[in-house]
Amino acid sequence: MPRLGVIRDTTEVLRGRVAQSSIPSDFKTYFYTQTLDHFNYRPESYTTFQQRYAINSKYWGGGMSGAPIFVYLGEETSMDTDLSAIGFLTDHAPQFNALIVYIEHRYYGQSVPFGEVENASSLGYLSSSQALADYAEIILEIKKNLSANGCPVIVIGCSYGGMLASWFRLKYPHIALGALASSAPILYFDDITPQDGYLSVVSRDFRETSESCYSSILQSWAEIDKVASQPQGLSVLSKRFNTCVPLNNSAELKSYLTFSIYAVAAQYDYPPGSVALICRGFDETPKGTDVLGKIIAGVSAYKGNLRCLNVPSAIGPAGNVNLNQNTAWSWQTCTEMVMPIGGGINATLFPHAQHFDLNAGIEYCKSFYGVSPRPHWITTHFGGHDIKRVLKRFGSNIIFSNGLRDPYSIAGVLGNLSDSLVALTTKNGAHCLDLLPESREPNDPDWLTAQRSSEARIIAQWIAQYKADQAANC
Amino acid sequence: MPRLGVIRDTTEVLRGRVAQSSIPSDFKTYFYTQTLDHFNYRPESYTTFQQRYAINSKYWGGGMSGAPIFVYLGEETSMDTDLSAIGFLTDHAPQFNALIVYIEHRYYGQSVPFGEVENASSLGYLSSSQALADYAEIILEIKKNLSANGCPVIVIGCSYGGMLASWFRLKYPHIALGALASSAPILYFDDITPQDGYLSVVSRDFRETSESCYSSILQSWAEIDKVASQPQGLSVLSKRFNTCVPLNNSAELKSYLTFSIYAVAAQYDYPPGSVALICRGFDETPKGTDVLGKIIAGVSAYKGNLRCLNVPSAIGPAGNVNLNQNTAWSWQTCTEMVMPIGGGINATLFPHAQHFDLNAGIEYCKSFYGVSPRPHWITTHFGGHDIKRVLKRFGSNIIFSNGLRDPYSIAGVLGNLSDSLVALTTKNGAHCLDLLPESREPNDPDWLTAQRSSEARIIAQWIAQYKADQAANC
Repeated sequence: MPRLGVIRDTTEVLRGRVAQSSIPSDFKTYFYTQTLDHFNYRPESYTTFQQRYAINSKYWGGGMSGAPIFVYLGEETSMDTDLSAIGFLTDHAPQFNALIVYIEHRYYGQSVPFGEVENASSLGYLSSSQALADYAEIILEIKKNLSANGCPVIVIGCSYGGMLASWFRLKYPHIALGALASSAPILYFDDITPQDGYLSVVSRDFRETSESCYSSILQSWAEIDKVASQPQGLSVLSKRFNTCVPLNNSAELKSYLTFSIYAVAAQYDYPPGSVALICRGFDETPKGTDVLGKIIAGVSAYKGNLRCLNVPSAIGPAGNVNLNQNTAWSWQTCTEMVMPIGGGINATLFPHAQHFDLNAGIEYCKSFYGVSPRPHWITTHFGGHDIKRVLKRFGSNIIFSNGLRDPYSIAGVLGNLSDSLVALTTKNGAHCLDLLPESREPNDPDWLTAQRSSEARIIAQWIAQYKADQAANC
Repeated sequence: MPRLGVIRDTTEVLRGRVAQSSIPSDFKTYFYTQTLDHFNYRPESYTTFQQRYAINSKYWGGGMSGAPIFVYLGEETSMDTDLSAIGFLTDHAPQFNALIVYIEHRYYGQSVPFGEVENASSLGYLSSSQALADYAEIILEIKKNLSANGCPVIVIGCSYGGMLASWFRLKYPHIALGALASSAPILYFDDITPQDGYLSVVSRDFRETSESCYSSILQSWAEIDKVASQPQGLSVLSKRFNTCVPLNNSAELKSYLTFSIYAVAAQYDYPPGSVALICRGFDETPKGTDVLGKIIAGVSAYKGNLRCLNVPSAIGPAGNVNLNQNTAWSWQTCTEMVMPIGGGINATLFPHAQHFDLNAGIEYCKSFYGVSPRPHWITTHFGGHDIKRVLKRFGSNIIFSNGLRDPYSIAGVLGNLSDSLVALTTKNGAHCLDLLPESREPNDPDWLTAQRSSEARIIAQWIAQYKADQAANC
């Protein structure tokens, strides 16, 4: 989940871990004629677009059997890159005789209402509420087409898609029986989570992995600034770090290392560990290597043999930002997905990280897209404040799963809200790890296998209860 | 709640029962700068309009006291006519030290985004989802302004407003602790409720009130047709019924009697009883009066001494319709509030009533407004099918109150869905009767007083539980 450029697209990383990057052959692709605007009735609201979804019925028991339907709610990426990276649904479908459905999020992949346009008029229909309503319509359509009215639906999502999954269960309980919301930072809005929460977890991940590694990184910032301030210093830095284009200032490099290397490594710190990989890179340098040399070795160990290091030169409002990486998602962060991530006293490894500056962000978004963010809309519409009190006696059947090495977990639901709004955490898990394919992780640690089993067991309980309720009504 | 002209505006009738038709002096009126389009981010979505609301703080304990906020969610009418007709909030505020808030529904009263316009482009932002989001924003704003963050909010609504109240609790549990949904026919969508349900209750009401009255009405339809088929017959009918303009056909008269007299009398059959009033009119005619004479006497008894009977000549899709009576509401019935009300075998008193014809309705709405209804949207977005199974284990704190003489009660929630999603019904109650002012009903029957007390007691329990939860978190 990239947030104002903080983090790279989830699936960019997931993709790197799997062989395929196309639609697995067990899936058949369909297009649904989707309503552009579910909430208004202007003549333009009736415009339609083709929304892509895919179905795998290999394991399905059929509509009459009442077998469940697992629906993956696509997040901010193309189905092509996402589908082969997800394992949970396919891995568990056999034991449930489940139908597997993937729905691509509007404005991503091939589900683009207006093609490749980037202005506010055409992007204006891209919002989480519209996306949830899209899912509602498609799920009902699939159930109707397959005569599967009595089949319970479980929605599943990762990261932003995990938020959507939890919100979908809350807003559309009549369509989804339950939700598995993996690594969904639904509390990273307004002031619910301290803005330095994200980087504080990155700091902790590094410190816990290697105290010396942590120290080297902490030292390196001053060293980078020191070199940069010398005559030809930037040129020296550019050469040593092998940047693709010469650095304009040291902030570019620091921002890149912070958000594109360390943060990403922490977020996707999957076993056997990307943070450890970087730190090993540090440790394995010859004795006497200076601190920048260690950093460079760590980056190389993590990134592999790149032709050059693609340090972006565009800096956005928070000093960390490269908004252009993904127009549709950056649009979302410029409208409603305003997650205040920044520096602070708990982001100990990143003293240079700037505080989140909402006003600067607003100005940036206004100049970039011509629209103002609505930073309070997510909490107005979906809640978040006092979540434990609010949901203690409202709602049911959501699993909030988090790996605590994932910096976004700081804004996830980490404790049970009620008997059936439950949190599953793993100390050494990372972003959406539970949804990755089992079969592709031959060395899955026991705690990960246990987490996935717990998820499947809870889902089975929901379904059993649903069937008991159904039977009781007969 | 008028539905494709079936029923007159609730408050038209409520208004007739109270002296005032302006804002009571205890209320202060405000305007909130409201977002036109909460769900999109097009440049036009940022347009704002002034939405009216009113606050009565006479009884309030203040923000620090944690006293509750009673919020009446306006339905399809102006605050001016509505506010003085509602009693429940004012009557119960003293015992709760409650703040009273009334929020006018967008596109009604003075909360009109584009003034008096009637085309789809300007009316297009009129939808239930937008209205709910409006309420969310205003409630949060009021709580902020009054430093009332810790004060629980109870939303209350009547008829369509009752639907909104129940939906608001379901969609915005983080803003409203509970909802009192009075006479909310949330199940009159799709095929959940038989389309002849409404008229079947009207039939029952008349039959239970007076078998002879019921027989006379049933006889009258053939008599009307017989007279109409004779030379000068329509002129005779027009004269006898004293219509303001000559009848064009007998269907006009039958439709008027069905939907503007009998159905309205049944819907608002408040003690001491409008159905009984009509039937007494029948009975008190001199011996030997013909059946039309009885009908005319009954109508006169009900309507009082009118200069003439305003039988509308516009007939809409279901043969029953006068769409122009209220543009904003008829717009809503032409977009999402598609309630299939029509004739059928259980509408025994109305053999002439036509079946609901969705296709005809769609054609009518298209020609009238240029947009197509979305007849499945309400159940897609808010649910309704299998409501007992869906909500048995989801949601909390809604009272569905219904008076069973109200024809809309047939599509209300008449049984408890769970421990805290409860139904309160009164055998002899009618549309929104529980929300009328106590003080203005000196002869309130005991069962009505008991219903209101039950509602207040349940609300008090919600609040007590909320405070206990709050305290437990400290």
